[in-house]
Amino acid sequence: MSVKKKTRGQLIVLSGPSGVGKSTVISELLGARRDIYFSVSFTTRPPRVGEEDGVNYNFVTREVFEEMIAGEELLEYAEYVHNYYGTSLKVIREKLDAGIDVLLDIEVQGAAKVRAKCPDAVFIFIVPPSFEELSRRLHRRATDQEEVIQGRLKKAREEYRQIPNYDYLVVNDKVSEAAGEIMAILVAESCRTKNRMNIVEGV
Amino acid sequence: MSVKKKTRGQLIVLSGPSGVGKSTVISELLGARRDIYFSVSFTTRPPRVGEEDGVNYNFVTREVFEEMIAGEELLEYAEYVHNYYGTSLKVIREKLDAGIDVLLDIEVQGAAKVRAKCPDAVFIFIVPPSFEELSRRLHRRATDQEEVIQGRLKKAREEYRQIPNYDYLVVNDKVSEAAGEIMAILVAESCRTKNRMNIVEGV
Repeated sequence: MSVKKKTRGQLIVLSGPSGVGKSTVISELLGARRDIYFSVSFTTRPPRVGEEDGVNYNFVTREVFEEMIAGEELLEYAEYVHNYYGTSLKVIREKLDAGIDVLLDIEVQGAAKVRAKCPDAVFIFIVPPSFEELSRRLHRRATDQEEVIQGRLKKAREEYRQIPNYDYLVVNDKVSEAAGEIMAILVAESCRTKNRMNIVEGV
Repeated sequence: MSVKKKTRGQLIVLSGPSGVGKSTVISELLGARRDIYFSVSFTTRPPRVGEEDGVNYNFVTREVFEEMIAGEELLEYAEYVHNYYGTSLKVIREKLDAGIDVLLDIEVQGAAKVRAKCPDAVFIFIVPPSFEELSRRLHRRATDQEEVIQGRLKKAREEYRQIPNYDYLVVNDKVSEAAGEIMAILVAESCRTKNRMNIVEGV
């Protein structure tokens, strides 16, 4: 008997308010952990300037998306402002079965649906050091009007109410530290007794 | 509102069979994490050659130990071969209250008592890469007779049955990696939502 490789990948769900710097943290994390598969969402909304198909989103037609719904190929999906957004269950399942960890960047409602279907997934919520800092970060981006910023802050407050449903809370003060904490969480999760009982089987 | 320091320390319970190299892993861990307080057990057994009071054990008389029992100063204690062994609740509580993480090296029965009293503690079990390797390590020490070694292996098998009660399973193949996994576990535990809700209070 020797140490056997963990057979199944870990599903990691990351949520956090707009402006928290989640995509920067994810870039840092994926740079250090190249073995993680980042799940790219599907959407019917048209690409914005600078957005790449297969990188920011998988851009598909309404027909294709509705076929995915009908074929039960989606782990979760939602419709916002007449556009569909969703996560492919098929791709994720293939990766997890191959022993690859999968990272999902998903908002709180989508995360709730994933939680219902995949209770073994690890749920991480990223927050700024303070709510005031979130407001500062949103203003600093200067791409949005005050009204839009206030809307995002209001939404953030609603999202914060879901935090108790998440396993971990990571503070994005310094990006490298936040990414480091997520990496530690992933190591710890791989050490969970339930994920490693194969090591001591047959003793 | 800003990030507040976690107010309470984390109690970490480490178990593992004789010969797994636990004390080497603990030395490595304490070298890297000098902020952790390592709880030294109390015993009435006389010190062996090379053992230091306050380092290996706190060596006390039977009278003192029985006063500690009567005063309910012990988190757990047991009597083996006419000697008491126990853990001071008083010291641990003081450290935890001061925000200091406390590490306990304790065998499975003691750990079960701690689990009943401190369900929020983190329980880590250390195993060798294989049971054959444990046998090799015990033989390599060459300090014990074959009969004693067989006794230790039998006890190890019994201890293994308690593994499902532990939160984490760490494999001591390379000491630095085992210590690294424990450090990751401690970071992850400090990120647990329940330990960090103070960060997002009042939003």
